[in-house]
Amino acid sequence: MWSSSVKTGEQLSISGISAKDLAKEFGTPAFFIDESDFRSRALDWNAALSKAFESNAGTVYYAAKAFICTEVARWIKDCGIGIDVCTGGELAVALAAGIDPAKIELHGNNKSVSEIQGAVDAGVGIIVLDSLYEIERVAAAAQKNGTTQKVLLRITPGIDTHTHQSIATAHEDVKFGFSIASGAAWAAIKEVRNHSSLELRGFHAHIGSQVFGYETFQLAAERLINLLAKYRDEFKSELPELDLGGGYAIAYLPGDKTVVPSQALQALATAVKKNCEANKLAIPKISIEPGRSIVGPSMFTLYEVGTVKDVTLEDGLHRNYISIDGGMSDNIRPSLYGAKYTTVLANRTSTAPNISSRLVGKHCETGDILIREIDLPSDIVPGDLLAVPATGAYGRSLANNYNHVPRPPVIAIKDGKARVIVRRETEADLLGLDI
Amino acid sequence: MWSSSVKTGEQLSISGISAKDLAKEFGTPAFFIDESDFRSRALDWNAALSKAFESNAGTVYYAAKAFICTEVARWIKDCGIGIDVCTGGELAVALAAGIDPAKIELHGNNKSVSEIQGAVDAGVGIIVLDSLYEIERVAAAAQKNGTTQKVLLRITPGIDTHTHQSIATAHEDVKFGFSIASGAAWAAIKEVRNHSSLELRGFHAHIGSQVFGYETFQLAAERLINLLAKYRDEFKSELPELDLGGGYAIAYLPGDKTVVPSQALQALATAVKKNCEANKLAIPKISIEPGRSIVGPSMFTLYEVGTVKDVTLEDGLHRNYISIDGGMSDNIRPSLYGAKYTTVLANRTSTAPNISSRLVGKHCETGDILIREIDLPSDIVPGDLLAVPATGAYGRSLANNYNHVPRPPVIAIKDGKARVIVRRETEADLLGLDI
Repeated sequence: MWSSSVKTGEQLSISGISAKDLAKEFGTPAFFIDESDFRSRALDWNAALSKAFESNAGTVYYAAKAFICTEVARWIKDCGIGIDVCTGGELAVALAAGIDPAKIELHGNNKSVSEIQGAVDAGVGIIVLDSLYEIERVAAAAQKNGTTQKVLLRITPGIDTHTHQSIATAHEDVKFGFSIASGAAWAAIKEVRNHSSLELRGFHAHIGSQVFGYETFQLAAERLINLLAKYRDEFKSELPELDLGGGYAIAYLPGDKTVVPSQALQALATAVKKNCEANKLAIPKISIEPGRSIVGPSMFTLYEVGTVKDVTLEDGLHRNYISIDGGMSDNIRPSLYGAKYTTVLANRTSTAPNISSRLVGKHCETGDILIREIDLPSDIVPGDLLAVPATGAYGRSLANNYNHVPRPPVIAIKDGKARVIVRRETEADLLGLDI
Repeated sequence: MWSSSVKTGEQLSISGISAKDLAKEFGTPAFFIDESDFRSRALDWNAALSKAFESNAGTVYYAAKAFICTEVARWIKDCGIGIDVCTGGELAVALAAGIDPAKIELHGNNKSVSEIQGAVDAGVGIIVLDSLYEIERVAAAAQKNGTTQKVLLRITPGIDTHTHQSIATAHEDVKFGFSIASGAAWAAIKEVRNHSSLELRGFHAHIGSQVFGYETFQLAAERLINLLAKYRDEFKSELPELDLGGGYAIAYLPGDKTVVPSQALQALATAVKKNCEANKLAIPKISIEPGRSIVGPSMFTLYEVGTVKDVTLEDGLHRNYISIDGGMSDNIRPSLYGAKYTTVLANRTSTAPNISSRLVGKHCETGDILIREIDLPSDIVPGDLLAVPATGAYGRSLANNYNHVPRPPVIAIKDGKARVIVRRETEADLLGLDI
């Protein structure tokens, strides 16, 4: 939930810097990212993949969509892992950071022709094909350059992550990929083989988000390996790669479970080996795409309380409405997904009794609620600081300018030093696109 | 649903310019705003307010949160109506457009001290007070300048817009305002009167969003007028203003009802007069805050189809997945609120049979669905243009850069001419905040 350098004691600190000092220097609201924590999570996944799959370990692709900026992309590069991008914009950040294009994977259900050409021109290592149109487009882009593009096919394996059960007939009502059950996957395989500018390396699947437990990942591996076996039976050659995607869960609330990389990938390796043996297949290179599980817990948001209001409820009980200086512009996940967060008083300790509270933002919207129900000290007043942990994934990346609120900066903390890596927007930025 | 200059015939056109030409000149995705339609809706509300309330007509404040940019703020100024802003950013846009500060109203549950000082310095006409802290803050800001600030108190009248019924004991579990039933409103009134730098002009209520029917507005008027009477009884003077907010519904789908300004305000005037008579009060100045009902139908979004995919469903039926070049970054309302939209093929007619379709975006997220279920021609192919009407309110204003997708431009159309009023973001913009 909190990154490793955070201490929540008398007042919250990260790498020895107090929340008060951070607020004073960088203002609020602001995102703070624990660089050492981020790097160690990235390296953990890499080490876990190597240990679980040994010589068959493929690449850990960091899922840029969770959060990316140029400096974080530089950390990815330093860590020696890959990056998974799904637009020209994300690709531009990766290239700006100097990431080796061979370590970049391009994704997405509707890459534009120019995004595809840009990726092929840059020499990205892998493009994940998601529709019949894309097969043609990527083939044409590579042919134009006189190159061969390595590709994976995105497969919908027919798995319901919520029930941890296979959907009976394995059809999926989603925009991504080619269904095994409907025959779409097989048709796509044959279509890719018609293009000499494409090198089919294998298959890709991504089963969902914030997934606990390993069974669904194992089931996805089983389905894809069966498809590899069918390919071998039909075409008398084996495809060398599988990308089993991301979706590994993190803790948002006290007591939440979290996925441990070594355990998750050991379980995955067991399933991969078993199914390859059963199909008499060589074990393919296995790649994965953690995003949230690297950046999610590495970041927290610091807010300043602006107003506090006691509201009498229908039943005569009271609710303390605590308004902070951000809201659904910097964290839309509670409104968008019903996501739950916790918060702590960050600038001081309080011995006041906890009371039923609601953390709300400053936007002109009743639904601008960050935490619907939480017990917080009754003596919280304007000027107090509140820290919300685990805001690294899909916080800043989904941020908007609703009510013309400038988006917060991202501050990196390492070895007791703090520095801006994404600057705060200004009023000039807000008006900068206006003619 | 569509603005007045739009024709949906052989191909969609606005003010005589074809969708094809617009896409060619400005690219996709893009928002197109019908300037004459916007102005006429603003003027309609203004005329309806004057007609319904005659000498007691207050101000039509355009709710900037729905959508604002400098050029649209200039139209507001030209139309002679006011503007309702709720942050320093929205205030900056209004001032940049040269709107008379006396016509600006400042709102919000958690205005910062600097936002309040900025508004008082600018000389905004009205500040709506939302908490006891704000009473002190606005009083201090005005006192600092040696001025008197006109204020309204935001009241929660205890009305459930969904059931069109009063909540029995009239408490409301919301962050906004002061509850009449709990006594919070009365305490706030007394507090405001303690400050000589504040001039209490009256009360404000906003009952909800996308509200059909007039009963809830009438009920809110009744509650606020009863409070005016209580004030008169206690302090032997009458407050001169009520602001009854916005929330008037528009049509999103064929067959949807829409609120007619003249009817809505006539119904409101009837209720106001009746309740003032009953309480032997002079009729106060009545102001309103339409936002969505001005800009919502004036704008549509034009997308280009990128891919089309036939997906076999569990029951053997098929769904046509049509991917467009935008999605939840330019219109998050379907994901955020379950909002429903329609779309039409904009670059040509089709005689192909309609089939069950789903309109999805290009973001790396399964939930990136713009229209969950719609019948569209079976021959839609990449390169076709789709127009989605009624995207003016809370479309561009809630837009984000998820997946580093640049936010679309806003193009104004008037008298057969199109011009950019908010330019498209570039890759340079996306990386512009990175250090």
